[in-house]
Amino acid sequence: MAGFTDATQVRTTGDGGFDADLDPVWTVGGKPNGGYLLAVLARAAIDSAAAHPDPLSASAVYLSPPDPGPAAVTAEVLRTGRSATQVRTRLSQKDRTCVEALFTLGTLAAATAPRWVDAAPPPLPAADTLSPTPAHAPGSGLHIDMLDQIDQRIDWKSVGDPPGELRGWLSLPDTPWDPISLLFAADAFPPATFTLGSNGWTPTLELTVYVRARPAPGPLRVRQRARLLTEHLVDQVCEIWDANDHVVAQATQLAAYRMPPT
Amino acid sequence: MAGFTDATQVRTTGDGGFDADLDPVWTVGGKPNGGYLLAVLARAAIDSAAAHPDPLSASAVYLSPPDPGPAAVTAEVLRTGRSATQVRTRLSQKDRTCVEALFTLGTLAAATAPRWVDAAPPPLPAADTLSPTPAHAPGSGLHIDMLDQIDQRIDWKSVGDPPGELRGWLSLPDTPWDPISLLFAADAFPPATFTLGSNGWTPTLELTVYVRARPAPGPLRVRQRARLLTEHLVDQVCEIWDANDHVVAQATQLAAYRMPPT
Repeated sequence: MAGFTDATQVRTTGDGGFDADLDPVWTVGGKPNGGYLLAVLARAAIDSAAAHPDPLSASAVYLSPPDPGPAAVTAEVLRTGRSATQVRTRLSQKDRTCVEALFTLGTLAAATAPRWVDAAPPPLPAADTLSPTPAHAPGSGLHIDMLDQIDQRIDWKSVGDPPGELRGWLSLPDTPWDPISLLFAADAFPPATFTLGSNGWTPTLELTVYVRARPAPGPLRVRQRARLLTEHLVDQVCEIWDANDHVVAQATQLAAYRMPPT
Repeated sequence: MAGFTDATQVRTTGDGGFDADLDPVWTVGGKPNGGYLLAVLARAAIDSAAAHPDPLSASAVYLSPPDPGPAAVTAEVLRTGRSATQVRTRLSQKDRTCVEALFTLGTLAAATAPRWVDAAPPPLPAADTLSPTPAHAPGSGLHIDMLDQIDQRIDWKSVGDPPGELRGWLSLPDTPWDPISLLFAADAFPPATFTLGSNGWTPTLELTVYVRARPAPGPLRVRQRARLLTEHLVDQVCEIWDANDHVVAQATQLAAYRMPPT
């Protein structure tokens, strides 16, 4: 078992290739979490791009969930400009492509008051008045190992108000949040679909994260909400504020889901 | 000059290669519009994926704006599954990589009442009470050729209410909207930053579009809004409803911008 920084390390093998070792604890139902995989790919992208150390945007398609254990990553720098470097990355396991992601890298400043923001962060009860989400929630049918590694406190009293939305706090017990772990944070909350009658797994097809600033130390405030459920697909928006109430990351994902039989 | 369908055609050259001819009329300030380029890439992706004819998600990074004229497209099928095919695509011109995009392809149904949606479409005055946006707006300093090809009618009276938001209608005069042209529609409105004091160009760094259903015939209702302006970057969310008030596409983009000197 390794902390988040160690668990997302990659080791260069030359020519844009990297070895990764997918940690069994950053998993949901035994499979590595999608945001964790995005962070692994980000490390390879950043290692390949000398000029720009931070992810500004990360867009991934998820093809096939890898298992914990060894995986191969490739990174190709597409362009290096003055203010941004773009990199294409791929994670494979046993010659099976599992995730492919495009990164825009740049240099992020510490979060400060923005020029403009559309809304204030949502109110939340103090973290110490909420309970950590257990890794094995009764009735969920799924063991969410990664919940043993993080401190996630959801405001259950406000879930579904408004419908399709849940809010809470998120901490990494031993490590301050940084632009790479924010990629994980953007996919670490439960699917908002469970507020709408579906408590099953929602495998991610596409995930895009914008990291907007380096977060202040302290817990993140997270809002996850569903926008549209069609027959088999749902999109979710995740917004993240740092401990100083500044927006530090925004994500959108398209996921599959099944409604329970009616 | 060609209609949108003709202007986005690609011709296979074998082995995942395609020729495209970027049309000079689908441009902003002489450069092809980002949503138009995404539609060109979508045609190559779909041509490569026999099983799935529609884009479900499209995520692009923009490296270098191409000029109108010949361009080369490559498409690589990453995986073909039962319900989705993932494809990686790249647009180059004179050996310069201009755009790279990842697609999830599937099969879209006609838009119907969803299982659940978070909000009703925003109210808009009837299209015939609003004026088409001219290609050369006084004071904009930019000729937006593509506005001669589309019928865009913005509700100027409501611009900035709420701040950072603009809403209006969008039609292709000779062609009904389809899942591919929706990729263009998602990037066809003016930058919402101009409601916040910046009237300059906002070059897109990353654009992700989810196409949720086949649209009904008739004009699209479009809402474009900014969420966060930091020192040099802004994200914008675009939501699109068809003529029957069903959500058919959702997009998010990260763009650069400059505020005017104060």
